[in-house]
Amino acid sequence: MRRETVARPDAIRRHNLGLLLGHVHRDGELTRAQLTQRLALSRSTIGALVADLTESGLLDERVPNGGERAGRPSHVVAPREDGPYAVAVDVDVSRVSCAAVGIGGHVLARHAVANTEPASARLTATLIAESIDALAQQMKPGAWPVGIGVSVPGTVSRTDAMVEFAPNLGWRDEPFGKLLSSVVPEGFAVAVGNDADVAMMAEHLRGAARDCDDAVFLMGRIGVGAGVIANGSPLRGRDGHAGEVGHNVVDASGPRCHCGKRGCVETYVGDKALLKLAGRRRLPTSESVAALFADARGGDERAATAVRTVARSLGHTVATLVNVLNPERVILGGSLAGVFEFAADEVAAAMDEYAMSVAHEAVQLCTPGLGADSTLLGSAELAFARLLADPLAR
Amino acid sequence: MRRETVARPDAIRRHNLGLLLGHVHRDGELTRAQLTQRLALSRSTIGALVADLTESGLLDERVPNGGERAGRPSHVVAPREDGPYAVAVDVDVSRVSCAAVGIGGHVLARHAVANTEPASARLTATLIAESIDALAQQMKPGAWPVGIGVSVPGTVSRTDAMVEFAPNLGWRDEPFGKLLSSVVPEGFAVAVGNDADVAMMAEHLRGAARDCDDAVFLMGRIGVGAGVIANGSPLRGRDGHAGEVGHNVVDASGPRCHCGKRGCVETYVGDKALLKLAGRRRLPTSESVAALFADARGGDERAATAVRTVARSLGHTVATLVNVLNPERVILGGSLAGVFEFAADEVAAAMDEYAMSVAHEAVQLCTPGLGADSTLLGSAELAFARLLADPLAR
Repeated sequence: MRRETVARPDAIRRHNLGLLLGHVHRDGELTRAQLTQRLALSRSTIGALVADLTESGLLDERVPNGGERAGRPSHVVAPREDGPYAVAVDVDVSRVSCAAVGIGGHVLARHAVANTEPASARLTATLIAESIDALAQQMKPGAWPVGIGVSVPGTVSRTDAMVEFAPNLGWRDEPFGKLLSSVVPEGFAVAVGNDADVAMMAEHLRGAARDCDDAVFLMGRIGVGAGVIANGSPLRGRDGHAGEVGHNVVDASGPRCHCGKRGCVETYVGDKALLKLAGRRRLPTSESVAALFADARGGDERAATAVRTVARSLGHTVATLVNVLNPERVILGGSLAGVFEFAADEVAAAMDEYAMSVAHEAVQLCTPGLGADSTLLGSAELAFARLLADPLAR
Repeated sequence: MRRETVARPDAIRRHNLGLLLGHVHRDGELTRAQLTQRLALSRSTIGALVADLTESGLLDERVPNGGERAGRPSHVVAPREDGPYAVAVDVDVSRVSCAAVGIGGHVLARHAVANTEPASARLTATLIAESIDALAQQMKPGAWPVGIGVSVPGTVSRTDAMVEFAPNLGWRDEPFGKLLSSVVPEGFAVAVGNDADVAMMAEHLRGAARDCDDAVFLMGRIGVGAGVIANGSPLRGRDGHAGEVGHNVVDASGPRCHCGKRGCVETYVGDKALLKLAGRRRLPTSESVAALFADARGGDERAATAVRTVARSLGHTVATLVNVLNPERVILGGSLAGVFEFAADEVAAAMDEYAMSVAHEAVQLCTPGLGADSTLLGSAELAFARLLADPLAR
């Protein structure tokens, strides 16, 4: 049932402030002339909006970094380091990584805690609360946090930030959003998302899927999951669980998976599979996996064979996603970036075998444009969403 | 880059005419009072819009079928049988089914041609052109066709109605839209879509996925494919090829598939697999498949076992889609409706084995709300789209 609504002047102004801030957030420094053209508003309206945003400390107007040239200087509207920042958190099995991320997606400070085994939801919340202080101490005077965005390797309900199932953390039905809200400073807004979903969001905004309306981010760490952009918007599914390709069953008589089933994709493609195939009894961490890739590149035949074997399983998994989603681009993140860099031919060969030709011909495979920070920067976007929707609301 | 646009009065009127026609098209007869409430417009504006639509012969205003009761009669705005109709065509391997479909999704006339083997694209176009006349002769005087919508069991490019790959028809890169336009009467608009995609569209509009924003229509005939609604909109993918789950490979050493690969889902779940498992050498037609289901129900053990075996493969396929898409509802169409009706327990057992629990718990499986007509009615929607966007354009 549609209803025609009339936009009031104040609502229009707030909407336009959000649009302008959003352009600078996505693209960085922009001149007033560029903003005038992009928003298709008058120069005087843009001037008033810029004044609102600079007066409230959200943006800065200054001579660009290149320095003044001859003639009248063209000022740019830009993020400021003593402005608002998001507390971004990437919860992984062996590490909780935190960062302060400013407007424009710049990492301004970092703080990480490594674990030897997965932390409980309650302990994770406490670690994050401590990190908020550690980050604040690294920030310029005047900078202020807009809220906290956390990614977890598991399914998160759309409505109440409940982590329903994060098998590799050992969490089930953890009211993690509530837990975290109870330990962070009063009024600190908390948002929680799935790691692959937020990584996809960040790559769509500023990374390898920029200007690409149909893309998949396939994340491989200990677990494997996908974030999907379809027709320009995140694909969530009814409850926010879309993209759980890591638990598609390749072989029901295969290895036991943490999820309770057998032969899931992540038992063939995830970090544990990689280390096991290489005959290594080390804990699956970013360090042990990086060492394996280094050895494979250095000529260690067992390591190289392990990566190639995972690459074939990866090609099969990507083919399945390509058949169902017909994306323009598939971004391989986490340890899958390393698999793809070392064994792209094996990935391609498996795709030839498993993907339908019409969908396969069109797809591009690549590694993340934001390197290892896709998830962290996507978590920041969770925290920035409210500010961008209404920049002057506090 | 967003640009604010101002709607002119004429554009608003045309938009509102389309909205009003769309409500009657989806829901059938509605009173002026209901329309006033739904569109949130004044009674007089609704009156003027209804007058425009009745004067141009698109709708009728009349006493409802229940007859007049005491007091002032409440007239309803309703479709008319001598109004516009869509020529809807469902091209399948062994049959080309055509229908004249009126506003409201009513089938007003039918015409079908059976083949013993797949018709070429050119022959199919000719059969359809002949059917246009056959249908017109069954229609009331004054009724007029708004265009033709055709579904095919294959991938159709988003932009130019090219059928890129329909392995079971033996078509590859057929410019079917152009071919058809060249043989139908001058000015006859032609639109082409994938069978599962249009079936999903029809079920979302008026069938089992009405008021459901995340759904899958899994179509099984000789081929197997899915149409997907995600967050209320069709999931198409970059080129319109999304949903080709029938060519996901279950076992790369499995039976040879028409697509050129081995062990595709449709070699385990499609009509040929069903007949072969039952030891029947008959051509896969709706009649031979219906006979198999009847025999299974009647106690034929070999037929029953074949259906149960297909049901397990079907459960695996549905699980894969549920993990990736997290739909609220999965509609099983074509022969899969018969498989599900006979062996729902086997489908559920396979889903338990293959689907991730959080996604699985929420999903509902069902058969099409529009029976065997989902595809035909979805094809009609392809033809109606232009009329609904601008009812007075000719």
